[in-house]
Amino acid sequence: MTQVSVGIIMGSQSDLRIMKEAAEVLDDLKVPYDLTIVSAHRTPLRMVEFAQQAKSKGMKVIIAGAGGAAHLPGMVASITTLPVIGVPVKSSNSIDGWDSVLSILQMPAGVPVATVALDGARNAGILAAQILATSDEGLSQRLENFKQTLKHKVEEAAQNLETKGWREVIK
Amino acid sequence: MTQVSVGIIMGSQSDLRIMKEAAEVLDDLKVPYDLTIVSAHRTPLRMVEFAQQAKSKGMKVIIAGAGGAAHLPGMVASITTLPVIGVPVKSSNSIDGWDSVLSILQMPAGVPVATVALDGARNAGILAAQILATSDEGLSQRLENFKQTLKHKVEEAAQNLETKGWREVIK
Amino acid sequence: MTQVSVGIIMGSQSDLRIMKEAAEVLDDLKVPYDLTIVSAHRTPLRMVEFAQQAKSKGMKVIIAGAGGAAHLPGMVASITTLPVIGVPVKSSNSIDGWDSVLSILQMPAGVPVATVALDGARNAGILAAQILATSDEGLSQRLENFKQTLKHKVEEAAQNLETKGWREVIK
Amino acid sequence: MTQVSVGIIMGSQSDLRIMKEAAEVLDDLKVPYDLTIVSAHRTPLRMVEFAQQAKSKGMKVIIAGAGGAAHLPGMVASITTLPVIGVPVKSSNSIDGWDSVLSILQMPAGVPVATVALDGARNAGILAAQILATSDEGLSQRLENFKQTLKHKVEEAAQNLETKGWREVIK
Amino acid sequence: MTQVSVGIIMGSQSDLRIMKEAAEVLDDLKVPYDLTIVSAHRTPLRMVEFAQQAKSKGMKVIIAGAGGAAHLPGMVASITTLPVIGVPVKSSNSIDGWDSVLSILQMPAGVPVATVALDGARNAGILAAQILATSDEGLSQRLENFKQTLKHKVEEAAQNLETKGWREVIK
Amino acid sequence: MTQVSVGIIMGSQSDLRIMKEAAEVLDDLKVPYDLTIVSAHRTPLRMVEFAQQAKSKGMKVIIAGAGGAAHLPGMVASITTLPVIGVPVKSSNSIDGWDSVLSILQMPAGVPVATVALDGARNAGILAAQILATSDEGLSQRLENFKQTLKHKVEEAAQNLETKGWREVIK
Amino acid sequence: MTQVSVGIIMGSQSDLRIMKEAAEVLDDLKVPYDLTIVSAHRTPLRMVEFAQQAKSKGMKVIIAGAGGAAHLPGMVASITTLPVIGVPVKSSNSIDGWDSVLSILQMPAGVPVATVALDGARNAGILAAQILATSDEGLSQRLENFKQTLKHKVEEAAQNLETKGWREVIK
Amino acid sequence: MTQVSVGIIMGSQSDLRIMKEAAEVLDDLKVPYDLTIVSAHRTPLRMVEFAQQAKSKGMKVIIAGAGGAAHLPGMVASITTLPVIGVPVKSSNSIDGWDSVLSILQMPAGVPVATVALDGARNAGILAAQILATSDEGLSQRLENFKQTLKHKVEEAAQNLETKGWREVIK
Repeated sequence: MTQVSVGIIMGSQSDLRIMKEAAEVLDDLKVPYDLTIVSAHRTPLRMVEFAQQAKSKGMKVIIAGAGGAAHLPGMVASITTLPVIGVPVKSSNSIDGWDSVLSILQMPAGVPVATVALDGARNAGILAAQILATSDEGLSQRLENFKQTLKHKVEEAAQNLETKGWREVIK
Repeated sequence: MTQVSVGIIMGSQSDLRIMKEAAEVLDDLKVPYDLTIVSAHRTPLRMVEFAQQAKSKGMKVIIAGAGGAAHLPGMVASITTLPVIGVPVKSSNSIDGWDSVLSILQMPAGVPVATVALDGARNAGILAAQILATSDEGLSQRLENFKQTLKHKVEEAAQNLETKGWREVIK
Repeated sequence: MTQVSVGIIMGSQSDLRIMKEAAEVLDDLKVPYDLTIVSAHRTPLRMVEFAQQAKSKGMKVIIAGAGGAAHLPGMVASITTLPVIGVPVKSSNSIDGWDSVLSILQMPAGVPVATVALDGARNAGILAAQILATSDEGLSQRLENFKQTLKHKVEEAAQNLETKGWREVIK
Repeated sequence: MTQVSVGIIMGSQSDLRIMKEAAEVLDDLKVPYDLTIVSAHRTPLRMVEFAQQAKSKGMKVIIAGAGGAAHLPGMVASITTLPVIGVPVKSSNSIDGWDSVLSILQMPAGVPVATVALDGARNAGILAAQILATSDEGLSQRLENFKQTLKHKVEEAAQNLETKGWREVIK
Repeated sequence: MTQVSVGIIMGSQSDLRIMKEAAEVLDDLKVPYDLTIVSAHRTPLRMVEFAQQAKSKGMKVIIAGAGGAAHLPGMVASITTLPVIGVPVKSSNSIDGWDSVLSILQMPAGVPVATVALDGARNAGILAAQILATSDEGLSQRLENFKQTLKHKVEEAAQNLETKGWREVIK
Repeated sequence: MTQVSVGIIMGSQSDLRIMKEAAEVLDDLKVPYDLTIVSAHRTPLRMVEFAQQAKSKGMKVIIAGAGGAAHLPGMVASITTLPVIGVPVKSSNSIDGWDSVLSILQMPAGVPVATVALDGARNAGILAAQILATSDEGLSQRLENFKQTLKHKVEEAAQNLETKGWREVIK
Repeated sequence: MTQVSVGIIMGSQSDLRIMKEAAEVLDDLKVPYDLTIVSAHRTPLRMVEFAQQAKSKGMKVIIAGAGGAAHLPGMVASITTLPVIGVPVKSSNSIDGWDSVLSILQMPAGVPVATVALDGARNAGILAAQILATSDEGLSQRLENFKQTLKHKVEEAAQNLETKGWREVIK
Repeated sequence: MTQVSVGIIMGSQSDLRIMKEAAEVLDDLKVPYDLTIVSAHRTPLRMVEFAQQAKSKGMKVIIAGAGGAAHLPGMVASITTLPVIGVPVKSSNSIDGWDSVLSILQMPAGVPVATVALDGARNAGILAAQILATSDEGLSQRLENFKQTLKHKVEEAAQNLETKGWREVIK
């Protein structure tokens, strides 16, 4: 698997502070990706072109992050049949993130967007890997290892807390 | 003024029960319009084409209604420089209308949508007429008359209430 | 592809009125599935077992629907590395669906749930098919055809509306 | 076009930090405007007078910004037939901006306010220009150029990101 | 006390089904009132006149009910120094009443509106009476009696429930 | 009028930073008041006693501020027939102030609380004065002057802005 | 255990349609209870008395249900040290239940109310039994059996669904 | 009473800053407890084991805190019949705490969670003690003393405020 598998796009460079977490986890899981800026509202035709070409460029999953009236994930999903993962970003002009969440989540019947939590770019990356792993046993194994690591970190923190006591840990 | 001035579009035929009120008030104000269905999510390229051609077809204002993750008004506004009026529709799958409202209202800087109230298609029609009236003295006068009619109806209801008493009126 | 690919579960039989739409669209797309009831809160160990065995039973994607404090999708995702699609159901005891949506969507970093719209079971089915289609060219083609059908229905409705006029259609 | 075309008003001087963005973009688009303070609640008669005289003073569009129980845009719209653009301002005493948004957006049938996003004064300015451009070909062309500029900025940021890689850009 | 003491106004005759409860309780408490329709948005000058003349007409308290972007109570309060009681009405076009509540409640410093519960017209009437009773000992006594009646009704219902048992009562 | 007319109470000393604004404006309007701490939840019997004695101590209006599950205003109103003004305080443990607002506003029929805006203690003070002014012509006149002052401040700010231009003012 | 263990109170007889579910489940679990009406706002002194005497009357847990600005659970908790379970009731005048939920849940530090779901009276009954079961082994065993019953019902529904197929079941 | 009575668990060590307040108040009330980390999503089997063994380890009440899609309290309650107290934590990725609150509060019929206020860990500790006190007269007395202390602190603050005046206190 040497080709690009995941396309990561975002509506504005300011979303990169959040969306980089998708790239980081894909790096950890050894999943190749492309990352760029595509604005639904400022570059609508670039967005159409991106969505139309995604499949032929080898992408299998698209991660799209946007804030406010976040139309990017849904509009990309309207053009391609690839699974699209939407990341609601709590941008500076957002009403506490509700606009981003509802604009991405509440897609009409026929055109799904796989929505993750507000600012949940890391989970978008993991979900993309889980989707690819449905036909990639090696990646599936790496995801199992990843899950084990999550578990071990909690177990270590728990043991540390139980051993030292909470008053010591909280210092 | 015999050409089409206003384009009324909606994401689904089911929105017609609301959006017809825009058409009705434009008829009353003698403003010519076209009305059709354009779905951002199911016919994205039709939407792009509609927005690209709107100006050359003589449209000066666009009214776009949609529900849920309502992307139609904002996406049309991303393509044309015509003023776009967005009508949030409380569709059956909407979360009490909040998704429709926020998806249309919270556009990023650079691409405005003139949003009216939830299910406020009648006001969208009036607003379109007000926009056209900025360069059409006859229409401007018809809008003044329309405003007088609103006033007279309230005055009549008030007089009726004051004369008969509320117990009589509420029967 | 003769084995089961999608597991559809729901917290209560009362969710079936919504969740059946996932099954229906998977039938249309010729994707084999299993459907049953698994309650996170009333049968927690059954849920654990279901999630632990899903992969070995041939499932590649899980669709989980639940309402209120909807823990089923997230808890299944905590146990398996298969992609889990969550359907927030507006159950009778829900606060307008907000509890269902937020309980499913707002998963912590590390454990994603691919959330669809409130009562969006049909989209959950389509998304499951899109995920499977990343390694199934035949299914991918059926999804393209499905998307064309959506488009054609809108175009027909639009043409009908333009030809007959909205006053005729709305009767 | 040397006369004033747009009236920008706001409920309090503290709104100027937001509302100045309407003025700035109108300056960029060479649209003449007047800007002042009119408080619906502290100077109601000044507000009535402003709205009654707006048309005769040459104004064609009014932009009104206010926060909290924001009555200024709707009340001005109740008096004049000019299009009124409302800017909900997230003032210090606002409940996360919800009060400002709903007080401006949810106008009753008959009296529209063209509402833009929370703190969306820049978009209010652009929308005012779009309205004027329906009868001003030069302004229409400047808006097309403005839209091109938005597009070019995104394209440049995208190219920069693709060339350097996100790790370099985010530093 | 033979003159009018309370002015009850509402934005639309459709609000009468709610606002009549203010009138009814004032009748019970023997407080004289006037009731009419004054629309902030459709009859703004009538509203100004009403507020300017209220005091000279003998009114001491004003009750104003309105729905949606409910500007009537706040605008009347901007003109008169009489205490204004605002009743948020859950009108048909309201977003679950939130718009009515926030438009009336969130007044800026300097211009209070005494807001009661959504559709709380009965409480508006009682509050008006409480205000008048600060200088009317007879009315104060009638309010004490009214409060006793509330108490007795609950006590009777409680005794009935305790005596008969809940299974009998709920039949 | 030398006796106490207004009782100002709050649930916690931490509310004083907000509630002092009621005291300040009453000082400005020369209305005598008492101010103390009464906690519905930590001193319920003190609260009952306060409410039972308020009238006999000469109070004519009570201002009660509280945050979170704010029961103080409503409980005082359940005991006395004096008008009670409720101030929702956005305390540190509040969910953005919504809990404070709804706990105070949504009183059942029979027991009104005159609710002002979130953190709107200044308006509570003014409203208390307006209530007292229904039978105090001197205070009524001071309120008219107060209203004039509000107006003059806006007019001065407006004139300053118009004269200097907004770019100068915003520096 | 022959004495009363649980006191069930509600603000109004209209809450009985919800609150009876607490009584029913306590009957099933053989937990003795008293049920009556106590209104915080209409019978505040009755409420104080009820809370003061609860312990001496043998009550060990109190279940209190109320809607709107629901003060009953919190006020009872302010007086007694018995555990108080609050049931937010979605009463007719409630804003979608949010007021009931927040008024009961958001108690200040020092005075807890054990809040259950909106209209969750059945769970209030179960929780009361769980509390009593911390020192009653027989009741603890009955609760285990109750939990088994919940599980069996789901398992039966699941088996039925799997055997017959969902199309048969949904008929 | 020398054995552990209360189990305090939380989804992440980052919740300790809030959850420590439960431990502190239990220390003050001389109630023995265990405190550790159990993550529903990262250590689901550890959670199952914890819940299954809680009773046999001598726990009588469980306090569980979690943020975002907070499944820990409800899932523990699905396994044990011990009373479970849920603490919604306003974690960094939470949407203003609403997700935490609704995920914990809105449990389906059959499986209650005793929910306290957002970040209300101190109240969770007190509630746990109240539950234990239903069969522990000594603890019951300590809770009475605790309640007296709350009262005295308010009374002292009130006396201080009344004596010195608010202007002095607020300095």
